[in-house]
Amino acid sequence: MKPFFNVQSVARVQALAGETAVLSAEHTAITTAAGRTLAGDLAAPHDLPGFSRSTMDGFAVRARDTFGCSETAPAYLELCGEVVMGREPDFNVQPGRCAKIFTGGMLPAGADAVLMVEHTRMAGDTTVEAAKSVAPGDNILGPTDDAARGQILLRAGHELRAQDIGLMAALGLEQAAVVRRPKVAIVSTGDEVVPISGAPAPGQVRDVNTYTLDQLVRQAGAEPLVMGLAPDDRAALQEVVGRALDTCDVVLLSGGSSVGTRDLTSEVFQSFPQAELLVHGVAVSPGKPFIWVRAGQKHLLGLPGQVASCMVAFYVLVEPLIEAMLGRAPLAFRRFGRLSAQLARNIPSTPGREDYIRARLTSNNGTGLIEPVFGKSGLITTLIQGQGLVRIPADSEGLYQGETVEMLLFP
Amino acid sequence: MKPFFNVQSVARVQALAGETAVLSAEHTAITTAAGRTLAGDLAAPHDLPGFSRSTMDGFAVRARDTFGCSETAPAYLELCGEVVMGREPDFNVQPGRCAKIFTGGMLPAGADAVLMVEHTRMAGDTTVEAAKSVAPGDNILGPTDDAARGQILLRAGHELRAQDIGLMAALGLEQAAVVRRPKVAIVSTGDEVVPISGAPAPGQVRDVNTYTLDQLVRQAGAEPLVMGLAPDDRAALQEVVGRALDTCDVVLLSGGSSVGTRDLTSEVFQSFPQAELLVHGVAVSPGKPFIWVRAGQKHLLGLPGQVASCMVAFYVLVEPLIEAMLGRAPLAFRRFGRLSAQLARNIPSTPGREDYIRARLTSNNGTGLIEPVFGKSGLITTLIQGQGLVRIPADSEGLYQGETVEMLLFP
Repeated sequence: MKPFFNVQSVARVQALAGETAVLSAEHTAITTAAGRTLAGDLAAPHDLPGFSRSTMDGFAVRARDTFGCSETAPAYLELCGEVVMGREPDFNVQPGRCAKIFTGGMLPAGADAVLMVEHTRMAGDTTVEAAKSVAPGDNILGPTDDAARGQILLRAGHELRAQDIGLMAALGLEQAAVVRRPKVAIVSTGDEVVPISGAPAPGQVRDVNTYTLDQLVRQAGAEPLVMGLAPDDRAALQEVVGRALDTCDVVLLSGGSSVGTRDLTSEVFQSFPQAELLVHGVAVSPGKPFIWVRAGQKHLLGLPGQVASCMVAFYVLVEPLIEAMLGRAPLAFRRFGRLSAQLARNIPSTPGREDYIRARLTSNNGTGLIEPVFGKSGLITTLIQGQGLVRIPADSEGLYQGETVEMLLFP
Repeated sequence: MKPFFNVQSVARVQALAGETAVLSAEHTAITTAAGRTLAGDLAAPHDLPGFSRSTMDGFAVRARDTFGCSETAPAYLELCGEVVMGREPDFNVQPGRCAKIFTGGMLPAGADAVLMVEHTRMAGDTTVEAAKSVAPGDNILGPTDDAARGQILLRAGHELRAQDIGLMAALGLEQAAVVRRPKVAIVSTGDEVVPISGAPAPGQVRDVNTYTLDQLVRQAGAEPLVMGLAPDDRAALQEVVGRALDTCDVVLLSGGSSVGTRDLTSEVFQSFPQAELLVHGVAVSPGKPFIWVRAGQKHLLGLPGQVASCMVAFYVLVEPLIEAMLGRAPLAFRRFGRLSAQLARNIPSTPGREDYIRARLTSNNGTGLIEPVFGKSGLITTLIQGQGLVRIPADSEGLYQGETVEMLLFP
């Protein structure tokens, strides 16, 4: 097998990403754990709620005392107490008796159901008329209804949502064991690229990629480290990439759109210990000049300099690697919404490569249509006008007007 | 009109949210602006890129010098210079001449197109053989191709994405004018509710809602302020709500599932200056006991105590208000993905109210199915097992097995 310098398929690059080891675990306060990935299965440390609770305002009863009763044939129960919220009742409900209880109150011993207040009437100071029968368990949560001790509630690799944080709070877990966030260094190159402050001289452009990649890395659940600009010069690139490797798991180097600069990037990447060139060119448009060198547990990635190409390459080729490092399937576009509609016009495509076309939603007589945003690939405004991407598979010669296609919506 | 104490429709509550004024603008560094909402239209302060750039490696030419040429009838052009990246060329391209240029290089005066290096051959030290014709504008970006000075690129109310941050970097805008984030105070009540650290005594439960709402508020683009627990007591509630009103735009008070506590909440809310009861009860399940009191520019919201109900009420009833304060349409579920599939079983529903059913994806012989997660509404694990919600409109008696329905995917 000699994959070097052959253009590889997107599927092959994503499969390589899937071979990457999951990063180590760390602990974080649950208040900062949303969006993080669980490092291990989460088991309930105790039963939840741990006692029987009422889900209604009413009376705690022995269900059998209400069997057969109705509006026309009520039962009469003796009131033996009232449950105080947040306290364990200090009485039992004996046969023929009941206790006043509110939503969330703890069921007293002896009782096995709650009769809603709407189905009762006070028939004296201490006599409750029950006009409906209840079955054991009615209008209560049992001690293990939410979770039994030891039960696995969430699996390793799960991305924590608001309700998962709530569950951990319910279980008294103030810390979550999550996968460490990959540290991703961002380097922009190009002798024509200048910092964004100040006015570029003629021939110069501002460093768009650092700012765009910084956001993409954050969105992907990783931690960016901005290294700044590096000139297109072997020694300078070697120095900045080496410095990035000291602290980061991944180095993203964007720029160098000319062929000579791309070759320089590849050579610099391969100069590091244990370096192994995995990918040099991918059958995808935009994003073709993608370089991936693995150096031990670290990854050196070369991305196109044009921001639109850089961004598509990130979504298609880099994010699956970050997903894998976080212990998830190496999928692209996990954070994208999906929307299907008819295509407003033909989109030609070259077979043999995957195409990602920037697209927007339009409407024709109230019907939503997906319309490609055409424009030269170096233009950032195609990304601004676009609401998402339409994927054209490698074996397709294009998509036809009127065909129903799926649009991947930018997050 | 007398809306007070009548249960109102979800649509009515969302329409009321839409009457809320947009908050003021503030400036933030673009590195922290992703997810924020633009306070005003964004116009290009200058042309972008501002000069003509090559999109290929090759030769800057006068297109007319290549007209009619081909592999078999090449043109010969005299090399008059090389464009240095990031510099304005100090020469003109005269008729019959060309200049070496790399991707991203600035087009020299006189040239109007770039001939790709693949279509050329050096026919001597300073003679380039051109084997293909190019039209004016080929393989270049013009000075205003990305944006012309004054052009509106993004509209007020737009939520900033990674590429929008990149665009601002390209334009040298280091700060963005965004809508101030609503400040949202979070108060949990209930005498049975205790802080999450330590073991609750029998009858007590931990404060799940503070942690869940904290995340929901952040997700919605607002800024949470955790006020902690307050007892179900008029003076205590009055004090904590008053303190919250000093600094916050919105107060979320959850808990008080019993009818008496809900009435107390409503009374406390209405005791503040300019208080106006807008909503007391909504035709939605879960989430019915929602209270909305407007006090001047501020909003006092009562949410159900059970976490699942609290969460649905937040998504359906609170998030549209936050959207409106951020200058967007008062829509629910904007951040939710959508997925359509057949329903695995019948879901009955009571006409006259909107139902939100927790659901998960299952599969049957490889076909995706949406299956309701049944469970008592007080259970948090129904939210954990669920991947989203299925909405049943108010005029429906339920959904049938096999019907294709839409699931709103939890963010």
